[in-house]
Amino acid sequence: MGLPMAANLAKSFPNLVVWNRSDKKDALEAAVQSAGCKPVYASSPAEVVANSEVTFSMLSTPEAVKSVFFEQDNAAIHGVSEGKSIVDCSTLQIEDMVQTDKAVREKNGAFLEAPVSGSKGPAEQGQLIFLCAGDENLYKSETVQTGLDLMGKRSFFLGPVGNGTKMKLVVNTLMATMLAALGEGVVLAEALDLSVPDLLEVLSLGAMNNPMYALKGPKMKYGVKGYETNFPLEHAQKDVRFAQALADDHGISMSVSGAANEWYKAAKGLGLSRKDFAAVIESIRAASGKS
Amino acid sequence: MGLPMAANLAKSFPNLVVWNRSDKKDALEAAVQSAGCKPVYASSPAEVVANSEVTFSMLSTPEAVKSVFFEQDNAAIHGVSEGKSIVDCSTLQIEDMVQTDKAVREKNGAFLEAPVSGSKGPAEQGQLIFLCAGDENLYKSETVQTGLDLMGKRSFFLGPVGNGTKMKLVVNTLMATMLAALGEGVVLAEALDLSVPDLLEVLSLGAMNNPMYALKGPKMKYGVKGYETNFPLEHAQKDVRFAQALADDHGISMSVSGAANEWYKAAKGLGLSRKDFAAVIESIRAASGKS
Amino acid sequence: MGLPMAANLAKSFPNLVVWNRSDKKDALEAAVQSAGCKPVYASSPAEVVANSEVTFSMLSTPEAVKSVFFEQDNAAIHGVSEGKSIVDCSTLQIEDMVQTDKAVREKNGAFLEAPVSGSKGPAEQGQLIFLCAGDENLYKSETVQTGLDLMGKRSFFLGPVGNGTKMKLVVNTLMATMLAALGEGVVLAEALDLSVPDLLEVLSLGAMNNPMYALKGPKMKYGVKGYETNFPLEHAQKDVRFAQALADDHGISMSVSGAANEWYKAAKGLGLSRKDFAAVIESIRAASGKS
Amino acid sequence: MGLPMAANLAKSFPNLVVWNRSDKKDALEAAVQSAGCKPVYASSPAEVVANSEVTFSMLSTPEAVKSVFFEQDNAAIHGVSEGKSIVDCSTLQIEDMVQTDKAVREKNGAFLEAPVSGSKGPAEQGQLIFLCAGDENLYKSETVQTGLDLMGKRSFFLGPVGNGTKMKLVVNTLMATMLAALGEGVVLAEALDLSVPDLLEVLSLGAMNNPMYALKGPKMKYGVKGYETNFPLEHAQKDVRFAQALADDHGISMSVSGAANEWYKAAKGLGLSRKDFAAVIESIRAASGKS
Repeated sequence: MGLPMAANLAKSFPNLVVWNRSDKKDALEAAVQSAGCKPVYASSPAEVVANSEVTFSMLSTPEAVKSVFFEQDNAAIHGVSEGKSIVDCSTLQIEDMVQTDKAVREKNGAFLEAPVSGSKGPAEQGQLIFLCAGDENLYKSETVQTGLDLMGKRSFFLGPVGNGTKMKLVVNTLMATMLAALGEGVVLAEALDLSVPDLLEVLSLGAMNNPMYALKGPKMKYGVKGYETNFPLEHAQKDVRFAQALADDHGISMSVSGAANEWYKAAKGLGLSRKDFAAVIESIRAASGKS
Repeated sequence: MGLPMAANLAKSFPNLVVWNRSDKKDALEAAVQSAGCKPVYASSPAEVVANSEVTFSMLSTPEAVKSVFFEQDNAAIHGVSEGKSIVDCSTLQIEDMVQTDKAVREKNGAFLEAPVSGSKGPAEQGQLIFLCAGDENLYKSETVQTGLDLMGKRSFFLGPVGNGTKMKLVVNTLMATMLAALGEGVVLAEALDLSVPDLLEVLSLGAMNNPMYALKGPKMKYGVKGYETNFPLEHAQKDVRFAQALADDHGISMSVSGAANEWYKAAKGLGLSRKDFAAVIESIRAASGKS
Repeated sequence: MGLPMAANLAKSFPNLVVWNRSDKKDALEAAVQSAGCKPVYASSPAEVVANSEVTFSMLSTPEAVKSVFFEQDNAAIHGVSEGKSIVDCSTLQIEDMVQTDKAVREKNGAFLEAPVSGSKGPAEQGQLIFLCAGDENLYKSETVQTGLDLMGKRSFFLGPVGNGTKMKLVVNTLMATMLAALGEGVVLAEALDLSVPDLLEVLSLGAMNNPMYALKGPKMKYGVKGYETNFPLEHAQKDVRFAQALADDHGISMSVSGAANEWYKAAKGLGLSRKDFAAVIESIRAASGKS
Repeated sequence: MGLPMAANLAKSFPNLVVWNRSDKKDALEAAVQSAGCKPVYASSPAEVVANSEVTFSMLSTPEAVKSVFFEQDNAAIHGVSEGKSIVDCSTLQIEDMVQTDKAVREKNGAFLEAPVSGSKGPAEQGQLIFLCAGDENLYKSETVQTGLDLMGKRSFFLGPVGNGTKMKLVVNTLMATMLAALGEGVVLAEALDLSVPDLLEVLSLGAMNNPMYALKGPKMKYGVKGYETNFPLEHAQKDVRFAQALADDHGISMSVSGAANEWYKAAKGLGLSRKDFAAVIESIRAASGKS
C-alpha cells in the first residue's frame, strides 16, 4: 500500500523524504521519481521524521509498527521533537494507536491516527478514505490536508485517538457480516436450484446493490481455488473479533455479526485463513455437506 | 401497487380491460385514461379474464388472491379457458402459486408467477423487476414481454412455478439481514461515541455502498416515531421466516439471517410490527438498555 | 409406546377394551393378559370409545390421529357421546389438539390433551410424565387419575387445550439446545486435546449434571455409526421449529435455541435426520472440517 | 475460598504454614486451629514456600496472583528452590498459568495448575473438583494427593499446564449456555401463559434434570432484585469470552454459546454485571419489551 501512496504524495511534494523497511527501495524510488519528484531516500525512520514537517507512515502489521516506531536502530520516535508530526495510516489495535500517540506527544510532537478504508486499487488511484482521529489542528493543517487530498477522495476527523480505528472496525464488521449473509443466500439459492448469477443480477438491480456483492458474489460459486485473495479471510475475521470485543466492553449484543463471526472461525478451521474472505461461504456449505 | 402498473400497461394497450376489488374504481379509471386508453371496466374478475388474452393480477394478500381467483362470485378462474393466460404479480407463498397454476392449467389456460421486486416508486416509474416462473412460452409471448417492459426495467424467467417466489424470499431475507447488520453497527457506533452520519458516509464511499443503507440508515437514529413505513417490519420478518423454512426443508444452516430473524421477532414484541423494518434496530438497543 | 402403556393400565382395569392400528394385535393382547386382565379386543376405534368411560389414545403421527379419530371406518369420533371421554397422549401440533377437542365437545364428550415426556423405557416402568390440558374435571376424575398413576410418575394440569403441547415444545427445545451446546463443548474439547470422557466426568460431578449428558455425551465421540436412535434428530428439530414459531407469534427472540436449530438443520443436510439427535455434533464438526 | 480450603487441609497437616493477603488473618488462624492444627502463620508468601514441601495457593484475581507470586516484597517465587512445589488453585488465563509454571521451573521447583470447579459450599464440605495440569509426578505425590482428597471429592490430571484452565473454560461456557437456554425457555413459557414453576418441575422430572436449573430457575421469575449473586454475571461472561477465543484460535464455530454470549453482553449493558449470572434472562426479556 505504501508505494502508491508515496507516489501520489510525490505529485505535490517534490522533495519528499522516503524510507521503507522492505528491500523494495528501488521500486519506491522509481515510483516517486515518475511523479516528477527527486526524493531523498532516508537512512532510517528517525531521519525521515527529523527532516520532515509531517511524516505519513503505512505499515502492514502491529509488529512492523512497533519495530519502525520504537525498537529498531534509529526508530521513528527518536526523530520526533517540537514541530514534528506523525500521521499513521496503518490499521492497528486501539491500544497501539493510543501508545504511539502518547509517545509522540511526550516528545512534543503531534499525532494523527488515520487508518484507511480501501485497498490497493483505490491507493493507486488516490481514492482512499482516511478515518482520522487525534490532533485536530494537525488534521486541519495545510500539509496534512494536501497529503490526504493527494492520496484519497475523502477524509474524516472523528475525535480522540482510537476513534479512527473504532470506525474502521465497525465498517469492516458490517462488511464481513454482509458477505456472510450473501454466502447464506447463495447456499440457499443453490439448494433451491435457483441460478446464482440470476440472484446476483436481481440484487444488482435493487436497493441492496453494492460493489462488494458485484465483485465477490461471482467468486462464491467457483470453489476454494477461486478465492483469489484481495482481503484475507483471517484479517476480516480479526476485525470482527475486535469489534465484538468493543461491543463486549460496552455491553452490547451483536448476535448477527456474532453469527457471521462463527462462520469465519469455521472457515479458518477449513484452512481458508489466507484465502479471500469470500471463502466464508465454504463453512456454510460444509456445515450441511453441500461443499 | 396495481394502479400505477395498470397506468403503465395502458400506454400500449388502448383497450385494456380493468377491474379492482377496492372502491378506488374512479382512481383506476382516471389513471388508465390519462395514459390515452379507453378502458373497459369489467364487472368481475371472470369478465376480465374472459375478455383478455393475458390478465395481469396484483393483489395484496393471499386472502385477496383466494377470494378474487376462486371464491367470490364470478371469480377469475371461471373466466379461464383455452387461450387465456394469467400472470400473477402478487407475492404469495409457494403453495398458493402452485395451486393457482394447477387450477389454471386444469382449465387449459396458461399461468406465469411473476412476483415483483420494488415498491410504489418503481411501480410508478415502470422500474419494477419481475421474478417470473411457470409457463415459459407465455413468458416469451409478445403480449407478456410488452407488458413486462411497460411496467418494469427487467424480468427474469426462473424455471418452474414457485421459483419466482423462492427468489424473492432469498432476496428479501438478504435485505432484512443486511439491515439488521446495519442496526448492530449503528448501535455499536453510538456506544463508541462515533457519529452515525459519519458512519453512514464512510459506508457510502466504499464497497458496501447501497441504496438501502443510504435510505434507511439516517432513519435509525430518530427513534420509533421516525420509522415511517415503506416496508412493514412484520412483512420483512415473514419473508425471512419463509426463507428459513425453505432452508429447513433443504437441511441448510442460515445462522446469520437466523440471528437477524430473532431481532425482528423481538421488534414485533416491542410493538413495531407495522413500522418500517428499519425499526429492527430498536430491539438491538432494547436488549442492552440503550433505547 | 402404546403397548407398555396398555399393559400398565391393565393392572387395575381388568376389563380393558383395546384396539391398535398396526398388525401387532397379538403382542397387545399378550401384554395386557400378562397383567391379569381379560381384555376386550374391539373391532374399531369407535367401538373402544362407545364401550369405555374413558379412552386413552397414543398414536405416533398427526396422520395416524387424523385417520383413527376422523377418517377411517368407524373412527373414534363416531363412538363419542354424552359421558364418553378421550385422553389423547399423542404428541401433535396445537391446532390438531384444538380440533380434536372441538369435535369431541360437539358430540358432548370430554377431552383431555395429555402428551407425555419420556420414551419407551419410562413407558414400560410406568414412569411417564403427563402434560395435561383441557377439561379439568376429566383430569381430576378418579378413572383418569388412576390411569395416569398406573402409566406415569407425575401428571400436570396446565390449563386450556394446547397448553400441554406448548409445555412439551418448550421442554424439548431446551433439551435440543442443551445437547447442541454439549456438542459445541465436545468439539472444542477435542480441538484443545482435552479428553472428552474427562469433560463428561467433570460435568457429571457439578451443577450441570443431568441424565441426558450422561447418556448422550459418550455417543458423541463415536462418529455417525454410533448414533443409535432413541429420539430421531428430525423429530427433535421439528419441536424446536414449532417452539420457534410460537416465539415468533409472541414476538420473542430466542437466539440461543435459534442457533441450535441451525445446527440441527445442517445435520439434516448431512443426512442424519433419522439418527439420534446427538448426531447434531456432526454439523458442528463439519462446519470447520473436523469430521 | 481459601479459608475453608485451609481448614480442610489442617485436618491432616497439623503443622500447616499459612499466609493470607487480606486482613482476615484471625479468621484464617481460627479456622485451621479448630481443625486441631497449630498453624505457623508466615510473614510472607516466600516464607510459606520456603518452609513447605508443597504450597497450595488460592487467589481471587490475576492481579492478586501477580502480586503474591512475583511483585510484592518476599513474593512466593523467592521461596522456590529445588524440592519446593506450588499447586495454584486460582482461576486465571492460560498465559498466566504458563508464566507461573515457567518461573517456578526456572528455579528448579515443580508446578501444578489446579483450578477448581465448585464454589464456597463445596469448598467448606471438601467437595471441590480439581482440574490439574502440569507436573504429573507432583500430581501423583502423596502430599498433593492427600491435600486434594482433603479439599475435594475428585481430581483430574489433564496434561500440560494450561489444560486445567481450558477444561474449566469449556465447562463454564457450557454452564452459561445452559442457563441462557433456560432463560429463553422461561421467557417463552411466560409469553405462553404457562406456569414457570410447572416448567421447572417438568424439567426436574426428566432427562434434563440438573442441580443448576433447580437452583437458578426459581430465581428467574423474581426480577432484578432477586438475583442474589452466587457467580457474578460478568465472571460467567468472561469465561465464555475466553472459551470463544480458544475456539477462534482453533477455527471452530460455536454459534450456540456465541448467541448465549450476546445475551450476557447485553445483560452487562443493562447494568447486571455484578448480579448472579441467572440475570441473563433480563436481556432476553428486554429485547422484546417483556421486562
